[in-house]
Amino acid sequence: MKNANHAPVVMSPSEQLLADGRHRVRIERVAPSVDEGRYPAKRIPGEPLDIEADVIADGHEPLRVVLEVCDAGEESWESQPMVAQGNDLWTATRIMRREGMVLFRIRAWIDEVAHWQEGLEKKVRAGQREDYGIWLLEGAEIIRRHMARAGKGGEIADLAQWLARWEKEGDLDQRVTLALDKERGNQAGAFPDPLFVTLSGTFRVHVERERALRGAWYEFFPRSSGTVPGLHGTLRDAARRLPAIAAMGFDVVYLPPIHPIGHAFRKGPNNTPAATGDVPGSPWAIGSEEGGHTAIDSRLGTLGDFREFLETAERLNLEVALDLAFQCSPDHPYVREHPEWFRSRPDGSIHYAENPPKKYQDIYPFDFLSDAWESLWQELRRVVLFWVEKGVRIFRVDNPHTKPFPFWEWLLAEVRAVDPKVVFLSEAFTRPKVMYHLGHIGFSQSYTYFTWRNTRQEIEEYLTELVSSPVRDFFRPNLWPNTPDILHAYLQTGGRPAFLVRLALASTLSASYGIYGPPFEWCENRPLREGSEEYLDSEKYEIRHWRPDPEHSLAPVITRLNGIRREHRALGWNHTLRFHPVDNDRIIAYSKTGEGPDDWILVVVNLDPHGVQEGWLTFDPAGEEEAFEVEDLMDNARYGWPPGRRYIRLDPADPRRLPFHVFRRVP
Amino acid sequence: MKNANHAPVVMSPSEQLLADGRHRVRIERVAPSVDEGRYPAKRIPGEPLDIEADVIADGHEPLRVVLEVCDAGEESWESQPMVAQGNDLWTATRIMRREGMVLFRIRAWIDEVAHWQEGLEKKVRAGQREDYGIWLLEGAEIIRRHMARAGKGGEIADLAQWLARWEKEGDLDQRVTLALDKERGNQAGAFPDPLFVTLSGTFRVHVERERALRGAWYEFFPRSSGTVPGLHGTLRDAARRLPAIAAMGFDVVYLPPIHPIGHAFRKGPNNTPAATGDVPGSPWAIGSEEGGHTAIDSRLGTLGDFREFLETAERLNLEVALDLAFQCSPDHPYVREHPEWFRSRPDGSIHYAENPPKKYQDIYPFDFLSDAWESLWQELRRVVLFWVEKGVRIFRVDNPHTKPFPFWEWLLAEVRAVDPKVVFLSEAFTRPKVMYHLGHIGFSQSYTYFTWRNTRQEIEEYLTELVSSPVRDFFRPNLWPNTPDILHAYLQTGGRPAFLVRLALASTLSASYGIYGPPFEWCENRPLREGSEEYLDSEKYEIRHWRPDPEHSLAPVITRLNGIRREHRALGWNHTLRFHPVDNDRIIAYSKTGEGPDDWILVVVNLDPHGVQEGWLTFDPAGEEEAFEVEDLMDNARYGWPPGRRYIRLDPADPRRLPFHVFRRVP
Repeated sequence: MKNANHAPVVMSPSEQLLADGRHRVRIERVAPSVDEGRYPAKRIPGEPLDIEADVIADGHEPLRVVLEVCDAGEESWESQPMVAQGNDLWTATRIMRREGMVLFRIRAWIDEVAHWQEGLEKKVRAGQREDYGIWLLEGAEIIRRHMARAGKGGEIADLAQWLARWEKEGDLDQRVTLALDKERGNQAGAFPDPLFVTLSGTFRVHVERERALRGAWYEFFPRSSGTVPGLHGTLRDAARRLPAIAAMGFDVVYLPPIHPIGHAFRKGPNNTPAATGDVPGSPWAIGSEEGGHTAIDSRLGTLGDFREFLETAERLNLEVALDLAFQCSPDHPYVREHPEWFRSRPDGSIHYAENPPKKYQDIYPFDFLSDAWESLWQELRRVVLFWVEKGVRIFRVDNPHTKPFPFWEWLLAEVRAVDPKVVFLSEAFTRPKVMYHLGHIGFSQSYTYFTWRNTRQEIEEYLTELVSSPVRDFFRPNLWPNTPDILHAYLQTGGRPAFLVRLALASTLSASYGIYGPPFEWCENRPLREGSEEYLDSEKYEIRHWRPDPEHSLAPVITRLNGIRREHRALGWNHTLRFHPVDNDRIIAYSKTGEGPDDWILVVVNLDPHGVQEGWLTFDPAGEEEAFEVEDLMDNARYGWPPGRRYIRLDPADPRRLPFHVFRRVP
Repeated sequence: MKNANHAPVVMSPSEQLLADGRHRVRIERVAPSVDEGRYPAKRIPGEPLDIEADVIADGHEPLRVVLEVCDAGEESWESQPMVAQGNDLWTATRIMRREGMVLFRIRAWIDEVAHWQEGLEKKVRAGQREDYGIWLLEGAEIIRRHMARAGKGGEIADLAQWLARWEKEGDLDQRVTLALDKERGNQAGAFPDPLFVTLSGTFRVHVERERALRGAWYEFFPRSSGTVPGLHGTLRDAARRLPAIAAMGFDVVYLPPIHPIGHAFRKGPNNTPAATGDVPGSPWAIGSEEGGHTAIDSRLGTLGDFREFLETAERLNLEVALDLAFQCSPDHPYVREHPEWFRSRPDGSIHYAENPPKKYQDIYPFDFLSDAWESLWQELRRVVLFWVEKGVRIFRVDNPHTKPFPFWEWLLAEVRAVDPKVVFLSEAFTRPKVMYHLGHIGFSQSYTYFTWRNTRQEIEEYLTELVSSPVRDFFRPNLWPNTPDILHAYLQTGGRPAFLVRLALASTLSASYGIYGPPFEWCENRPLREGSEEYLDSEKYEIRHWRPDPEHSLAPVITRLNGIRREHRALGWNHTLRFHPVDNDRIIAYSKTGEGPDDWILVVVNLDPHGVQEGWLTFDPAGEEEAFEVEDLMDNARYGWPPGRRYIRLDPADPRRLPFHVFRRVP
């Protein structure tokens, strides 16, 4: 198996070789260009692609620079002119329309016609009338050469008519005036000698479906969705939870692994190693005599139950994301059938996962360095396609940073070749360059450090890095205030206001966000122990019974925030995020725009869950010079907003109010 | 003629294709990398090359990253380990030794031996004694695999002995202690499975001779070097000027074109068009019945005289730089012999240079878009090699930005293939990206915007840009306070102090600097007219008689500055330049280091030529914690220097003192 997708489909701009020494124009620093053009930039339909390049040439003649765009596999390139921004920088913006791979390249040449017209214009201004004659003769030659390349269309008729009018007839000044027609000149200048035209390398844009950028996720363990405390819930129980989740406005439900769980060294409550007795085990210790990555834990139900779960979700406009955790319990059928996919030790045993002194004897990692790597890759491809075939289009990938990059680059491309709608979320909590490289090689989106960014400065710096180019071009954040692995101290100590703050931030800072649902909804915040980010009595190791408690539930707030996200396109973009100054650094304020500069949402959050904070916020949206009215979309209260600064006061202790505002402009 | 040098000699790092899916290590963002690796970085012998790269892999095992360096054309790569700087950044520094093209690349792999030793160490710390046995067994396997790849040298004997000592014999703890020998582990880890080793693309460094970076230039017109006012000077007269120039400490004398000058439309004094009478003409209107670019103006002398001029210069340790002005007067032999190299007009005439409404009828530019471009290129190559053969090793290239980039890339490579010692100075005063691209494609050094940077902020910003990577890697500045085309208003209005200030700045900010000598030496500052940067009675159009005036000459100051430049290596580098705060922005202060952090030169200049300026300078050289003593190398005065701030006062009106200091630390 050679990795066909590693072939250099895309050339760096410097690879535009010169077959002729007369190529005077040079195209440099084309953007967006992910990892020097090796990987595609990412967009969704409706999202703008801002393209720029330095285009230089010797001399001082005017240049023509054109962006060419084409759907991969098609032959027809659409052109649009790029615009000079000064200092040899040229730009163009194009809205991505259809899903799929889009190619773009830049074509540039010296505009001989415009150069001639510029010269003639200067002669007119300087009154060098004696030169008009020869200048018109030269122009006619230039135009004729360009016409010869223009083919037979309507344009050549226009140009021929234009040329005929000024070439010979009438008064000299009149002929010059006609010759200076910019529109016709521009038309002619589009047909340069192809010998002297410079073409950049070709760059790619992967236009994924909307969900790759945008979505509200809800994670829950199906086994905890039973109605009787202590009893193992089923997929049918879980399906009964879906209407409430849909009613809260979520787009995606994400299930931890639903496969059979191994018995050997099975973990007990609170991560007790090799527990005895009837413990349900960790869903990430995949595989037992019941089967492996394509089987369903019989306690949850059958494949048929899963199909029904998917159908229920679909009726509710919910998508289902499965967990891809490529590792095995010692009881996984692979261990017996494919020992070559694991690392054996000198004593004949198989290497369990180990990060000394920690031992994970219930987990056997795959050996991606095995000589049998190719059959392992193929099998894992089969696993993903098995679930794709069942109707799953979103995968949350567990720890992708512990498997080789080439594997993911290959796997993601292979899966998308079968179904281009598949979205992959990277659960890589690791070093930034590794997280970003997983974005390069094809993950649609990624978990982030958001969970650990709690101060205004931390949030502003981190989000600015994520939403600005070049990171924005390959890395889409999915912000989670909590996960089954992470209960941050902020939530442990901040009470209900802390949950409200982190919910507001996650759902409005990023087009994608998610919550590990039940414990978040009911503000569960007890850690395993002081200083730990693990939940006490974590659902990872035991069945929990989440007793709905309407009085304390955050559901109404969640519902409203998800509703605003759906109603206001601004919250569906990341690249329009801007932070605004507040003279109290416990208050953060930011806005996003949607369809235009007036279509903004302004979010103001008190980051301090313990006390009231007040301050002056400076927010000057484009074009607002007089006072205007805003509406807090959370409670529909309206406020006047003077130009410039406005006083803000947010009290987390006030039970009638939220510690944040989500303002829109009242039209 | 295909441009062989355009072939992609060097690959971008992303072109390292993966033949095997088990390549876990990825090498990214290698630097220095000029224009994505397409062009070589520039250095001189003795100059450090700081190499860096991001090196990432899945998982958390330790990496080994090695820099490999090789002289182009040789087969033997020298290795040196790179050092992890955190956040996946790896660096190495290497001093360039020999002139020539140097290749470098990076090799990286996961260090299985170190990973095993780390794990064993953690087991020891955790007291997991029960695992020692299997761990040693696994280690022995790992070491044996590495030894099998180590060949037959002394290393394998060391490793075999080491392995034998801990593999079976003795007490378990003792065996573990032996197995943890880091030095032996490190030795073994150097022999990874080549299947899993990642190699970066290959990058180039062009190590030019010293003069490419470093030199003091003196420009003068030989025809003005006669001893009798009004009489056309000769190369023999010019040769008699050389001892004085050498005595001032210059390294290079640069002569404007010395070729026959055309008669047609010959310019008269002060750029009078088509002057009548006996005017000498502009040296840049090259070519007459006497010959063209390989001939010498008979008024200056013969080729023999030029050879003698070169010999005189050589005896004085002066190099001679000639001007390459690739354009012709209407009387140039090429016009008759090769009309195909020029653009003809519809009326049969040849296109003279024109930038409407300005006309340069005494100049015919070459038509680089001619179908005969290849023969034109060959002829211009012949011209350069003609002078190289005569012994010229430095060329100042007139307006390279008005000829195609591919031409220069080809020409410079062709000339260096014949004589790698040739240095090219680009006289491109144009847009920054064009000037930088001329650096990319091979110009050794370039004129700059220094002439127009006169305030502290302008100087600090511009020089910081020039001396920092990545610009430093391809663009070497040559700072000129004046040229025959530029007499800046600062000099016009600032009197002698202005000349002293600009001289001090140019000679100490940059390793290369130059003056258009006679008018600078004698503070000639009369412009053609108010608001013009042209000299009145410019030497470009007439013969000037520079009457030496020892009382007012700047020669003693020039001599001292050039002497300091030679004595103190610090002034011969650009990359060690650092600016220091002064609380008066009319005073600028900067330092450079030479052989080490203590070997510094500190320059302090009053930028105001009109009045005294004083202020507090903060200069904390590395390692200086107590007061030390400095010497002003200009007048050998010594001063105490307290740690931290020091008071500075510079009076441009004081005839006994200079408006600047050049301090060194008194050892």
